[in-house]
Amino acid sequence: MDLPNDPRDLPFPFPVVTWRDGAVVLIDQCRLPEDLIFRICRDIPSLCAAIRELAVRGAPAIGVAAAWGLALSWDLSGRDGCNVEAAYARLLSDRDALAATRPTAVNLFWALDRQMRVVDSIRGEGVGLEIIGRLLAAEAETIREQDVALGRAMGAAGAELLPADATVLTHCNAGGLATGGYGTALGVVYAAHDAGKKIRVYADETRPLLQGGRLTAWELHARGVPVTVICEGAAASLLRSGVVDAVITGADRIARNGDAANKIGTYPLAVMSREHGVPFYVVAPSSTLDAHCPDGAAIPVEERDESEVLGFRDLRWCPEGVGAWNPAFDVTPAGLIGAIITERGVHRAPYRDSLAWIEDESVS
Amino acid sequence: MDLPNDPRDLPFPFPVVTWRDGAVVLIDQCRLPEDLIFRICRDIPSLCAAIRELAVRGAPAIGVAAAWGLALSWDLSGRDGCNVEAAYARLLSDRDALAATRPTAVNLFWALDRQMRVVDSIRGEGVGLEIIGRLLAAEAETIREQDVALGRAMGAAGAELLPADATVLTHCNAGGLATGGYGTALGVVYAAHDAGKKIRVYADETRPLLQGGRLTAWELHARGVPVTVICEGAAASLLRSGVVDAVITGADRIARNGDAANKIGTYPLAVMSREHGVPFYVVAPSSTLDAHCPDGAAIPVEERDESEVLGFRDLRWCPEGVGAWNPAFDVTPAGLIGAIITERGVHRAPYRDSLAWIEDESVS
Repeated sequence: MDLPNDPRDLPFPFPVVTWRDGAVVLIDQCRLPEDLIFRICRDIPSLCAAIRELAVRGAPAIGVAAAWGLALSWDLSGRDGCNVEAAYARLLSDRDALAATRPTAVNLFWALDRQMRVVDSIRGEGVGLEIIGRLLAAEAETIREQDVALGRAMGAAGAELLPADATVLTHCNAGGLATGGYGTALGVVYAAHDAGKKIRVYADETRPLLQGGRLTAWELHARGVPVTVICEGAAASLLRSGVVDAVITGADRIARNGDAANKIGTYPLAVMSREHGVPFYVVAPSSTLDAHCPDGAAIPVEERDESEVLGFRDLRWCPEGVGAWNPAFDVTPAGLIGAIITERGVHRAPYRDSLAWIEDESVS
Repeated sequence: MDLPNDPRDLPFPFPVVTWRDGAVVLIDQCRLPEDLIFRICRDIPSLCAAIRELAVRGAPAIGVAAAWGLALSWDLSGRDGCNVEAAYARLLSDRDALAATRPTAVNLFWALDRQMRVVDSIRGEGVGLEIIGRLLAAEAETIREQDVALGRAMGAAGAELLPADATVLTHCNAGGLATGGYGTALGVVYAAHDAGKKIRVYADETRPLLQGGRLTAWELHARGVPVTVICEGAAASLLRSGVVDAVITGADRIARNGDAANKIGTYPLAVMSREHGVPFYVVAPSSTLDAHCPDGAAIPVEERDESEVLGFRDLRWCPEGVGAWNPAFDVTPAGLIGAIITERGVHRAPYRDSLAWIEDESVS
């Protein structure tokens, strides 16, 4: 794959995290949309920094990056002439470093554990360092491919819910950039678009970090899907105007009863959707479903630093001496959710019944 | 009055628009909150530029500035040795220039007309230029004082609705800076604060122009009222948490049935207030009530330039080639409004009855 400078030359699914010439290569999401820059991480400290600085963000994308990180760790050991035991010691240390970057990202630990199992399952059986390295690289690529496959499956299921000529409102970035390259909420948009439907998207800019105005607008525009940015405060007027056919968002965690945590501002959007009779859909892979979480009240909400609200990047517009409150997520009650779309299809209320398979699988 | 550099040294009501040494002096709201700078307008073109650039904004504040503008016009004629007829010709020209700055601001025309009536009522009766100048200055000061008196009356009425220990959520800036110095929604906060109640305020930052994060936070902090800024998307979570006793906003125009137009984002805030059982109050002087407007559907909503949404000041964060939708106002249905507070007191639904005095006065 060449690394293009023009977003319109990007392949799709987007090359959010790739392996190239012995390095983990990321689309630097801190630099979007101004510049399409590929950040080349040649060692674990530089990859950890990229994750911490949100150069790669979105739980599935972080998982793919972490998986490639352990493949990189092993590859570096090979280049340094280490034996398997020395490489394994380094792997453990690098796993801990990667795990510490975003302590609440479930996919991060899941991907790291999956790679550790690859090594643990064959270590001590006399398999050479190079073979183990190939298995780690293959597993990382499998994690990415599986995520893309989940995106395609959710996209196909969700696209069925949209008319042939549809206007969608979305919040934050649940797109290719947040995942292995295809997306969850935006995966539905891409699937409908690629199936020949005429899709327009309104993107909530999504303060404080502006993932909607920056990233959702960027990737939809790169793929040729018409997109218009609005401030959160204008979403209610847009819904009232009657132009929106569906509101579609991702989710960070879905409780057993269907309550869904997602980026701050999702819950009022769901209320306004109900107020104006517009269906509200949540799109997330089944790994987001938490069988051990009975309802939204049990989902902890991360509060982030107030500096994110007091300005943006180097620009601060709030007065000195004034503080801010910055909850990162809110919880949308299941009663406001018209459908939850996973790779298994479209699930409707009551979610305790339609999502009962989570519990079955969790028990087994 | 000295012109302080430290907001905590400002007198209250704030000296938003004052007359000093032959010039109209404005708190430059474009420079807030970073710098407290007084913008000295020594001629009409510089005052027009200040209004156009939003150095002074908020309908009542613009009215006061325009009234002082015509006093300045006359004063300049006196200094230039003009006779009354020449001064009058210049006054007409300057009135037209001021009227063209913000064509939708009703208070602007109202203040200009009021000043023209001062001159028209005595011109041709042999009254000297200097006497007419004094009358214009007195009328401008009266307009400011009357606005402050309205603020105090609304504040006192509204403060009665707040408990002794109250947390208020507000949107945009309906404060001293938007008026002659006291405020409408924030006037209620100041009245309660000055009456010894313990008041805390959460301020919606209010994208796209961030009047909440910049101006509301600034003036509350300057007056020693504890204030915390939130992004619009977090308001629903705040209301759900149960800490808010009342949501209080201003209004740009109120229809005969009580429907109220205000800054974009007010309507969803009113819906979320109802959702969580928090009273939603609108504070506006009776001049905001439009007896000729039957309901909200008859209120035109200004759409402003998309560049305001695509970034802030010189910083643009949306991708090239992507557009935005930027309605400046939305309409809150009367059914969501717990009370409308004017200088006459607290009015409750049904507003056709409680606001019937508008129609009576409009007819008379």
